[in-house]
Amino acid sequence: MSVVALAGGTGAAKLLRGLATLIPPRDLTVIGNTGDDAEIWGLHVSPDLDTVTYALAGTLDVARGWGLADETFQCLRAMATYGAETWFNLGDRDLATHLVRTRALRDAPLSAVTARLAASLGVAARILPMSDEPVRTMIRTPGGRLTFQEYFVREKSLVEVTGVDYDGAAAARPAPGVVDAIRSADLVVVCPSNPVTSIGPILSVPGIPDALRATAAPVVGVSPIVGGAAVSGPAAALMRMRGLEVSPLGVAAAYAPWLRRLLIDSRDGTHAGELAQRGVEADVTDIMMTGRERESALARRVLERR
Amino acid sequence: MSVVALAGGTGAAKLLRGLATLIPPRDLTVIGNTGDDAEIWGLHVSPDLDTVTYALAGTLDVARGWGLADETFQCLRAMATYGAETWFNLGDRDLATHLVRTRALRDAPLSAVTARLAASLGVAARILPMSDEPVRTMIRTPGGRLTFQEYFVREKSLVEVTGVDYDGAAAARPAPGVVDAIRSADLVVVCPSNPVTSIGPILSVPGIPDALRATAAPVVGVSPIVGGAAVSGPAAALMRMRGLEVSPLGVAAAYAPWLRRLLIDSRDGTHAGELAQRGVEADVTDIMMTGRERESALARRVLERR
Repeated sequence: MSVVALAGGTGAAKLLRGLATLIPPRDLTVIGNTGDDAEIWGLHVSPDLDTVTYALAGTLDVARGWGLADETFQCLRAMATYGAETWFNLGDRDLATHLVRTRALRDAPLSAVTARLAASLGVAARILPMSDEPVRTMIRTPGGRLTFQEYFVREKSLVEVTGVDYDGAAAARPAPGVVDAIRSADLVVVCPSNPVTSIGPILSVPGIPDALRATAAPVVGVSPIVGGAAVSGPAAALMRMRGLEVSPLGVAAAYAPWLRRLLIDSRDGTHAGELAQRGVEADVTDIMMTGRERESALARRVLERR
Repeated sequence: MSVVALAGGTGAAKLLRGLATLIPPRDLTVIGNTGDDAEIWGLHVSPDLDTVTYALAGTLDVARGWGLADETFQCLRAMATYGAETWFNLGDRDLATHLVRTRALRDAPLSAVTARLAASLGVAARILPMSDEPVRTMIRTPGGRLTFQEYFVREKSLVEVTGVDYDGAAAARPAPGVVDAIRSADLVVVCPSNPVTSIGPILSVPGIPDALRATAAPVVGVSPIVGGAAVSGPAAALMRMRGLEVSPLGVAAAYAPWLRRLLIDSRDGTHAGELAQRGVEADVTDIMMTGRERESALARRVLERR
């Protein structure tokens, strides 16, 4: 059984960790968002790919939802001495990932480098960037455009958003293996990630939406919205800006017409009927992944009813 | 009074630290060796410039003679996980220096970047790389050529040396300010550094030997050889390979004809007469800098008898 997951960062990491307890890792392919990749201190940082990789390697800082557990920040402090920007928290051990990636990208595409990093960390699941070409999520604000990390980390998502662009998307191609994985999957999972800035960039790559429409596999999502708010991050504001209702209905609208089933929280059970009218089966359960057991339980639900 | 010092790494750091206790830092110009600069993990590392800068900033690890005091090595350990080469010990805080340098070198020459790094660390002395162009000390061995760091750090200077090249020297120019500093100096100091691989690369840059011959300032050296052996590092083997006697006489030969005075150790007092015959005044004293007081004492001797 081949499972393909479209994934952002923190929320995706939880579900993927759950899935990894249930299926052989080699049966899991993750298609990761690179729209929030950034150059920090001259290094190529791929926050979502790293969050997913660290989660599957068992080294993610679970409390923070990013970076490595038991991390130190000596280099960051020294960077401050040099007047470098330090709003993006790169830990000392995390730095190794970015150093290796940046050096390796001189000679190989991101997909190959991502595979090498994952293999070094003992991750047997296949982690694919959505594209080897740069696609950058840019946040339009009244004061100008920001990269996603500037908006999310530096500005703490506190600025008004007037639009979101996926720079470079038109010229991007799906990374090798992405389209084949979707088309030949037995199940496609849309992780509980931000529809606009985590899954949105993946869908901005020409060829990926077509593959989702064409695949015979059921496409099953987990709502990142519970009780009218995002479980984490700025999804609510970004969905509103896009004209999407901040509810499972808005999530379903973002993934029409290929989303078949959506896991929604008991609090949102009232939306089940309207979801059905839109052709999406609502699967009502407790979707908050507040621990390893609940991660596995939700993953089991995603898999069982395929 | 303007003092210009030609400097390698560890030995130079001690004398420079001593000089900095005696003269206003703005009167001190260091011309640093970049022949052992290396690319490590994709970063531009300038070991000798950093040793000098850290020494003058008061942050050098004095026991080791390189790197920062109280350093940690978390990133290095993580690099090992990725199979990266880890024979060159880059500490977590030291990494910040190389990250800033590497990024800044995209837009500015090494001399400007070196000045910026030094200023950030509160170093008021002027630290100039010998050249903004790459000059690389290559060690010829029976098994092929090695970079200086491969020879010195990775191979621990244990391989046979059949020759030393300064790749790029013919096309290199002295960094801005180097020639002027030498020509307008009141005193030029040749630090107790390896004549072949620390001072040698500096002298390989066309224009620098001419400036040393032309300057009206006395040129005063401190012997890196005491009692027939190098105080530290592989100077003895490299001098022999170059046909230089491993004694103050060999040092004087390497710096002919512009060396006027050479501080030599009491143990080497017997060479005073022969040095005089070769036109170099021997200044016999205790030259081992075994602590901060002795660093200052030796620096005072260098300055006093100018």
